[in-house]
Amino acid sequence: MSNLDILQQRLAAADCAALLIPSSDEYLSEYTQPADRRLPWITGFSGSIASVIVARDRAAIFVDGRYTEQAARQVDTARFDVCGFGNPARLEWLRRTLQPGDTLMVDTRLHSVAELQQLMEGAEAAGFKIAATPSNLVDAIWTTSRPTPSRSSVFDYDVQYAGLAREEKFTLLRQQLIERGRDLFIVADPEDVAWLLNIRSTDSIDTLDRGDFSNPISSFRVPAPLSRVLLPAEGEVCWFVDRDRLAPELLDALEGVVLICEPGRFDATLASLAAGKTVAANLRRTNYHHAKIIREAGAIEDDASVVRYRGIKHPNEITAAREGHRIDGAAVVRFLAWLPTATAKGIVTELEAAQRLTELRAENERYLGPSMSNLSASGPNSALPHYVPTKETNRVLNDHPIFWMDSGGQYLGCSTDNTVCFAIGTPESRHVLAHTLAVKGWMALSRARFPEGIASTQLDSFARQYLWQHGLDYGHGTGHGVGNFLNIHEVPHIRREIDHYSVAPILSGQILSNEPGYYLKGDFGVRIESHILAVPSAHEGFLEFETLSMLPIDPQLIDANLLDPHEARWLSDYHNGLVAGYEGMLDAAEASWLAGIARRFEDMANRAGA
Amino acid sequence: MSNLDILQQRLAAADCAALLIPSSDEYLSEYTQPADRRLPWITGFSGSIASVIVARDRAAIFVDGRYTEQAARQVDTARFDVCGFGNPARLEWLRRTLQPGDTLMVDTRLHSVAELQQLMEGAEAAGFKIAATPSNLVDAIWTTSRPTPSRSSVFDYDVQYAGLAREEKFTLLRQQLIERGRDLFIVADPEDVAWLLNIRSTDSIDTLDRGDFSNPISSFRVPAPLSRVLLPAEGEVCWFVDRDRLAPELLDALEGVVLICEPGRFDATLASLAAGKTVAANLRRTNYHHAKIIREAGAIEDDASVVRYRGIKHPNEITAAREGHRIDGAAVVRFLAWLPTATAKGIVTELEAAQRLTELRAENERYLGPSMSNLSASGPNSALPHYVPTKETNRVLNDHPIFWMDSGGQYLGCSTDNTVCFAIGTPESRHVLAHTLAVKGWMALSRARFPEGIASTQLDSFARQYLWQHGLDYGHGTGHGVGNFLNIHEVPHIRREIDHYSVAPILSGQILSNEPGYYLKGDFGVRIESHILAVPSAHEGFLEFETLSMLPIDPQLIDANLLDPHEARWLSDYHNGLVAGYEGMLDAAEASWLAGIARRFEDMANRAGA
Repeated sequence: MSNLDILQQRLAAADCAALLIPSSDEYLSEYTQPADRRLPWITGFSGSIASVIVARDRAAIFVDGRYTEQAARQVDTARFDVCGFGNPARLEWLRRTLQPGDTLMVDTRLHSVAELQQLMEGAEAAGFKIAATPSNLVDAIWTTSRPTPSRSSVFDYDVQYAGLAREEKFTLLRQQLIERGRDLFIVADPEDVAWLLNIRSTDSIDTLDRGDFSNPISSFRVPAPLSRVLLPAEGEVCWFVDRDRLAPELLDALEGVVLICEPGRFDATLASLAAGKTVAANLRRTNYHHAKIIREAGAIEDDASVVRYRGIKHPNEITAAREGHRIDGAAVVRFLAWLPTATAKGIVTELEAAQRLTELRAENERYLGPSMSNLSASGPNSALPHYVPTKETNRVLNDHPIFWMDSGGQYLGCSTDNTVCFAIGTPESRHVLAHTLAVKGWMALSRARFPEGIASTQLDSFARQYLWQHGLDYGHGTGHGVGNFLNIHEVPHIRREIDHYSVAPILSGQILSNEPGYYLKGDFGVRIESHILAVPSAHEGFLEFETLSMLPIDPQLIDANLLDPHEARWLSDYHNGLVAGYEGMLDAAEASWLAGIARRFEDMANRAGA
Repeated sequence: MSNLDILQQRLAAADCAALLIPSSDEYLSEYTQPADRRLPWITGFSGSIASVIVARDRAAIFVDGRYTEQAARQVDTARFDVCGFGNPARLEWLRRTLQPGDTLMVDTRLHSVAELQQLMEGAEAAGFKIAATPSNLVDAIWTTSRPTPSRSSVFDYDVQYAGLAREEKFTLLRQQLIERGRDLFIVADPEDVAWLLNIRSTDSIDTLDRGDFSNPISSFRVPAPLSRVLLPAEGEVCWFVDRDRLAPELLDALEGVVLICEPGRFDATLASLAAGKTVAANLRRTNYHHAKIIREAGAIEDDASVVRYRGIKHPNEITAAREGHRIDGAAVVRFLAWLPTATAKGIVTELEAAQRLTELRAENERYLGPSMSNLSASGPNSALPHYVPTKETNRVLNDHPIFWMDSGGQYLGCSTDNTVCFAIGTPESRHVLAHTLAVKGWMALSRARFPEGIASTQLDSFARQYLWQHGLDYGHGTGHGVGNFLNIHEVPHIRREIDHYSVAPILSGQILSNEPGYYLKGDFGVRIESHILAVPSAHEGFLEFETLSMLPIDPQLIDANLLDPHEARWLSDYHNGLVAGYEGMLDAAEASWLAGIARRFEDMANRAGA
């Protein structure tokens, strides 16, 4: 019997018509641990985000456009309908499949308040009953062969890298509670907890996306241990985490500052501290179960200030980021200098290239592991923006002029995530055109100056404008906030959707990615990605960006005729800055390769009369 | 006794604590007729938007930042508090002034649903009672000396200019009602009515802004007569308008197509048609009183589709707009050609300049009057973005190098609204810098290409980017939709606020203004404004703009060193296009003046090597 069969039997036994299964865990994490992957365990689907409803005789998987094909391939379509993502599609399927009066079970721990409330209201309006509990039938049957979570040591993250001391962060949040007449913060997002407590771990994870859990280059670090905090305006800060994971030095440091509590005591403590009080919670990051506990005991108010504070980097964090990007960039430059020689000598595959850069990064003692899966993409694979190579898809770089790699490392004080795009052999003119237009947009965003506090969405067009002139575009965001030895994805995002939750003001101290690209399905794709830091400009009230990533661009992929003289000069200055910046970090051959690149750009600038 | 005294006595007699008086009329018009200016009649305040609460012993006026100074000057501050605009300020003042249990009167005809609902909820939460009726005490006491409304003839607007026939528009809306399961459209916005019925009038209005009601250059046309329509999915279209205003030809044309109804029958008809039905209404444009009638009879659903259809111009409207801009532009060119000669010969004032252009426009038989107050601004006056000259403020152009004029005309098939900025004498370098940066932004927006359906707010940064580079900006939107012989302000707006009601997708066929500027308080300001038409580009799915306005730029106010070669070439081509476009419409001196301007830009382009 399949997992699905067993589940459908249990549904009947529980007198329920259907069960909702999301891809998220009870921390609403971006990347879930294998033990929390209930949806793949039932369906076989390995995409990063989906939702499933299992009824007694039928099931459905709800995915967005990018996963329609993959879902149809991975699930048993004799038993699953493949439907669009979102509440309207789910409600429509429920109406088609269930009878009025039927009961839908939901696990209130696995959904945010906003998401579940909307679905429950719609289902009730359609005449269904909801059985909402903090548990689910999958856990009841998935008892054996459930993977053990990664549980690395949790350590004290020094203020040299973290910036503010944890006590100062507590004071900040407590002052805010008092100013807003609130009593308690629930810090439900493990990344907010890591920031607040100045702690990190080196848990590993692999990308669910590819279904290849054993692939070494697809695994990476998630430095925020799964835990929660309750921070009252008065009284001790309670951290709900397994004490035995904490390094002894951390335990010493927290003595008298933070109370370590059993994770199993979280619900009861929350109910007790929230009684008659007003609780500040980020409703996008707090699960429905906890929000319900709070509402039954007191009042809940939406408050995303922890994630906002987290986005504005402290001077220590900025110093560490500059240094981290230099260390990381040196490895990338060494990789890029190796690439033409290696491909001239013999064949190099996507996986070998990924492996090579991973090894070069690892040579630095401050490297703590990858920050993301290595997206090493050649030829038609490069047309997939989120491609991660596997043994089955692994291409030989020598077979196609286009190669890009999107990868990054975790360092004390810095998470990197960058994309370099270099030609293997001679690129075609359409490759050069698309790349040049993306680079022009990348420069326009890097060089933008703008009023502090502008909505992040309003910088998006700068990066797309030259592609747009040629009727080209890319289907992903232009950029996203970046963590400090944390998740590489933070708010705000620079993207086109003006009503997206991640749209927020751009403020001094934020680190963002800048990653325009272009992708032609089945053919080729290009991307270039740097991290940029928002800093005050010479003009009061206006910010500009400092480019943190120190990464060369392939002059073979630039059409100098499409550059304005000031762009050609900027590119030349930028590359001369790389030569100077990496002094002493490269061997003679590597340094000479980089100098050669810089000379090419200087020639372009001189010819442009800039 | 002042009007305020009488009102306060009546409040006591009515056993009410306070009365809310908005600046809007019961059609929620952008420009109100003098007879509807209740707020100025009580306060003396002449700004375009404000709200007043009169309590028995005290009153308050609520205005946004740009009107704070003016309000303090115009109202009796011994009796009025001058407060910020919006509900929080109004509620705060109410809490400070009234006692719990006190009654606040509101006239439900003079507010949109959204606005009044929020205020009433807040006031009730604060313990006040609300007496909400479709009437108010001002009307009870303002019986004599109330101005007669402008009531020009309402005529049939030929499809040559209107585009779709009215019957086709009815079919469009009826199909949509049926598709969405609705029964009735309430078309509450007179501009929507004018579009839907293909009717116009030539009512006049003056800008309230300046308090100078007799100023000839501040008066302009509002071609949408105040009226409403009920359009049922089945049954006759009912137009509530004074039959005696309608031209005989229009009455003939409407025979059997539209039922003319007494405006006084509107409420009863609405209640009867809405009974048990679902009514589509633009909630931003439907007053609270009417929404209440609908809710008591049936259901109301927000629907802004009429204003959206209105924004997408029909090919006939586009043809007429091109021609209208050519006619209007020729008058502006003739004015600009006259200006240097006139200021060389003697002094010219702001009012004289405005008068001159008005006369030149009037020489064309298709001119139907101004579309807006004439904003003729010299020197420090040009630092006020909405400045309209009066006898008291009238400056001599010869006294300052900077002069701009924002003005427009109404034509069959076209409303124009443009700004030209020309130097009188020799401008200073800071004038040239600000103007050049604004022109570069204006060009960047005019030349943008972008995916159809992009949110209007995302084009805003293109126009500001060069000013931003120098730490400069402007405090108004970059652009707005434009009516067809209607209000020059329509949705969508191109502006920075991403949550503004006017943010909407940019679609092919929309006509928008493009008007970046810069203003230095007490010193000088610049602005340049054109209308642009969104048209399909050579690349599928991508739009670009056609510049409809044919207006020269002052080469004296351009620093060629700040232009990229392609910008210099574009400006030269654009001006050569003007020379060709106006062939036969200018006299020899005017044509020679324009050719001289074009030559200056051609020299710039040649020197830039473009």
